Amino acid sequence: MSYETYFQNLREQHLDELKELLSIPSISALSEHKGDVNKAAEWIANLLKKAGLENVEVHQTNGHPIITADHLHAPGKPTILVYGHYDVQPVDPLHLWTTPPFEPDIRDGKLYARGATDDKGQLFLHIKAVEAILKQEGKLPVNIKFCIEGEEEISSPNLPPFLDANRDKLAADAVLISDTALLEPGKPAISTGLRGLCSLEVSINTANTDLHSGTFGGGVPNALHALVDLLASLHDKDGRVAVEGFYEGVPQLSPMMREEFAKQKFDEKKLAESLELDTLYGEAGYSFVERTGARPTLELNGVWGGFQGEGTKTVIPKEAHAKITCRLVGDQDPEDILAKINRHLRKYVQPGAKLTIIDGEKARAFNIDPSERVLQVAADAYEQVYGTRALFTKDGGSIPIVETFSRVLEAPVVMMGFGLPDENLHAPNEHFNLENFDKGLLTIVEFLKRV
Amino acid sequence: MSYETYFQNLREQHLDELKELLSIPSISALSEHKGDVNKAAEWIANLLKKAGLENVEVHQTNGHPIITADHLHAPGKPTILVYGHYDVQPVDPLHLWTTPPFEPDIRDGKLYARGATDDKGQLFLHIKAVEAILKQEGKLPVNIKFCIEGEEEISSPNLPPFLDANRDKLAADAVLISDTALLEPGKPAISTGLRGLCSLEVSINTANTDLHSGTFGGGVPNALHALVDLLASLHDKDGRVAVEGFYEGVPQLSPMMREEFAKQKFDEKKLAESLELDTLYGEAGYSFVERTGARPTLELNGVWGGFQGEGTKTVIPKEAHAKITCRLVGDQDPEDILAKINRHLRKYVQPGAKLTIIDGEKARAFNIDPSERVLQVAADAYEQVYGTRALFTKDGGSIPIVETFSRVLEAPVVMMGFGLPDENLHAPNEHFNLENFDKGLLTIVEFLKRV
Repeated sequence: MSYETYFQNLREQHLDELKELLSIPSISALSEHKGDVNKAAEWIANLLKKAGLENVEVHQTNGHPIITADHLHAPGKPTILVYGHYDVQPVDPLHLWTTPPFEPDIRDGKLYARGATDDKGQLFLHIKAVEAILKQEGKLPVNIKFCIEGEEEISSPNLPPFLDANRDKLAADAVLISDTALLEPGKPAISTGLRGLCSLEVSINTANTDLHSGTFGGGVPNALHALVDLLASLHDKDGRVAVEGFYEGVPQLSPMMREEFAKQKFDEKKLAESLELDTLYGEAGYSFVERTGARPTLELNGVWGGFQGEGTKTVIPKEAHAKITCRLVGDQDPEDILAKINRHLRKYVQPGAKLTIIDGEKARAFNIDPSERVLQVAADAYEQVYGTRALFTKDGGSIPIVETFSRVLEAPVVMMGFGLPDENLHAPNEHFNLENFDKGLLTIVEFLKRV
Repeated sequence: MSYETYFQNLREQHLDELKELLSIPSISALSEHKGDVNKAAEWIANLLKKAGLENVEVHQTNGHPIITADHLHAPGKPTILVYGHYDVQPVDPLHLWTTPPFEPDIRDGKLYARGATDDKGQLFLHIKAVEAILKQEGKLPVNIKFCIEGEEEISSPNLPPFLDANRDKLAADAVLISDTALLEPGKPAISTGLRGLCSLEVSINTANTDLHSGTFGGGVPNALHALVDLLASLHDKDGRVAVEGFYEGVPQLSPMMREEFAKQKFDEKKLAESLELDTLYGEAGYSFVERTGARPTLELNGVWGGFQGEGTKTVIPKEAHAKITCRLVGDQDPEDILAKINRHLRKYVQPGAKLTIIDGEKARAFNIDPSERVLQVAADAYEQVYGTRALFTKDGGSIPIVETFSRVLEAPVVMMGFGLPDENLHAPNEHFNLENFDKGLLTIVEFLKRV
């Protein structure tokens, strides 16, 4: 029977299984969900076994488990390592979800749940594609390995040492990852670049107690004033990052690269409309795809201090906090960028305010040449199923592990994304368009057969 | 028996009663505490009755109840109206309290609880002083009225109409309020000025959903960026408020006034040390007592947006919020100031960010001439008990109702404070020094006998 028929027959069953996985709140960032993360790992291990994979192992780490599995019965054929992650982002603000994040719901052909597109839904496709080939043909056209982790959303602290220690076990001719997106419905894309990442948390402390704004207002430092001044100083009027030396190592956009970006014919007006924005906003002199694909950025992800309740509280807060992440490109070194931001903050902090900075995650940017054979095969597979050839793009996100895989295993990394840019990953109402669920299964089968 | 002996004999009983009052969480700003606010009102009404006051009434309003009572059996003698409030501030951050805010605890001669000094403890003194005179002498040397509200911490929305409607019932020769502080232990002060107040809440909305900082970072407005930029623009580098026209109506400090402030011999270094600050901070060119007593201010009381949890969340938040209050002096009109701030915010808000402003409380500043007879009598009473004459000061706080009392009842307002500046009102670990509890009782008795 054709793979179309095979997947059509099993569609309900597959979706029920995926919903079961999506109802496990495996939030890696929150320690109270450690049990759920473990549960998701065991669930994935069972799915791999059921699919016919061999040597399924759940490896304990200093954090959350890593799962490996393989099926190595195609001598002389290439070996493909599939990577994915079963952990998900936190879900707040919870009140903005239409249906609860861990009660998967299908509406208008979209599956809503935290992790639906990032990355449980996409990871699920690979396991089911392998299962399908084994069931239909009794064997695989390639050797396949899986390496699935539960710490991607907290920057994979335990995967690099695991890769280092298991270089031979995981050796492959190419690494296959589905954790990115199509350009738009019907328009597949293969990412040939990812931005790097670094993160930090900034705290300002002033007096040893909150103070009454009547008795003290105007006469003592206010932690919030000091913090907003400092945070505002991080950008200039043109939306550029104002930290000295921040842009060192950022490649200048050549006319050819700008042409490649222009090919995407990205509709900025449509994006603004869909987000209900009067206008997009960013560094002057660049288009949206250039800003997010080839330019670094510094974003405030959270700021808080003082009274957030109902009514008025005339308080001068003693502390204020901010969470910051940077997306990096080219040769920007996350260590160096963090050092520069630290210097900037220490230089400009207001008198009377004590500054504490905790450096967080660090990942370099990744780039691959689109002429690599596996990337061309992936484009062929997309063309076969979607009827249109995939564009080679630069993705604004960071999957820190991609650069590590490419470096440690010395193998090209193929990023075949089946999400969509507006699927609210990391936000309320995350979802996965089921059209790409169906086409994703077929595209992966096609890729494995052609490679 | 002397009043010293009388109060000494009843000290334990009085403190137990006050603790009972302090354990009622009568937070006026939080609607879930409405029942507690009512309970505190009833409790105060009973205390007034037990003290021998007559015509004790609990008046329902559109908000929390107002209590009145009187004792008018001194024909030909002046009538004193005592004002106080039984509501308290919210208690967060709760984790910074050494003992729970509504489980009163005495440590090192200090009574710790929310409301201990602001204003339940100080209000309690007046009721017990009147009770003492009635018990000791069978009659009062003056006519006395009480007017006690439960909405001071939310800017007394229902008291002005109540005063207007009950002008005759409340008519008095002077209004007596204890809701301020000594300068420092053993150094009494009578406030001859209070700052006015206005408040607002500012919200920034950007996209219709939180966005992933990888896919969108650098290419869309970030509500937190827009908010911190806007908030930072409210002050200049010298700590002055940068809102156009903000200082109109602010009286210039004359050399004589500066001399009066200098007389307080305020120890800025000691304050900084006690707050564990490297340095105080405020508008350039003014001392701490000038900044807080005679200069207006604009304070951020709360700022929040985005992710505040554990770990990293690479999100571009769709909304961000700030709570702001201004302290006003001289002829600054709260309506006018709010209009100017609104104008400033609308002018400087970043493209792509939607701004919402909700104006809140509005109260004018208050001033009284220190040569008023009742103020001199109050100074005498302090001198008798504390052994040192009270200084006439300007207080940085706002008791919006003081200006209203003075205007509606056309009577001088005497602010006899028994708190201390470091008693953490509006902050965790609020407390009341029991030395001033004891001396306060005697000072009020002395005042009522002399006036």
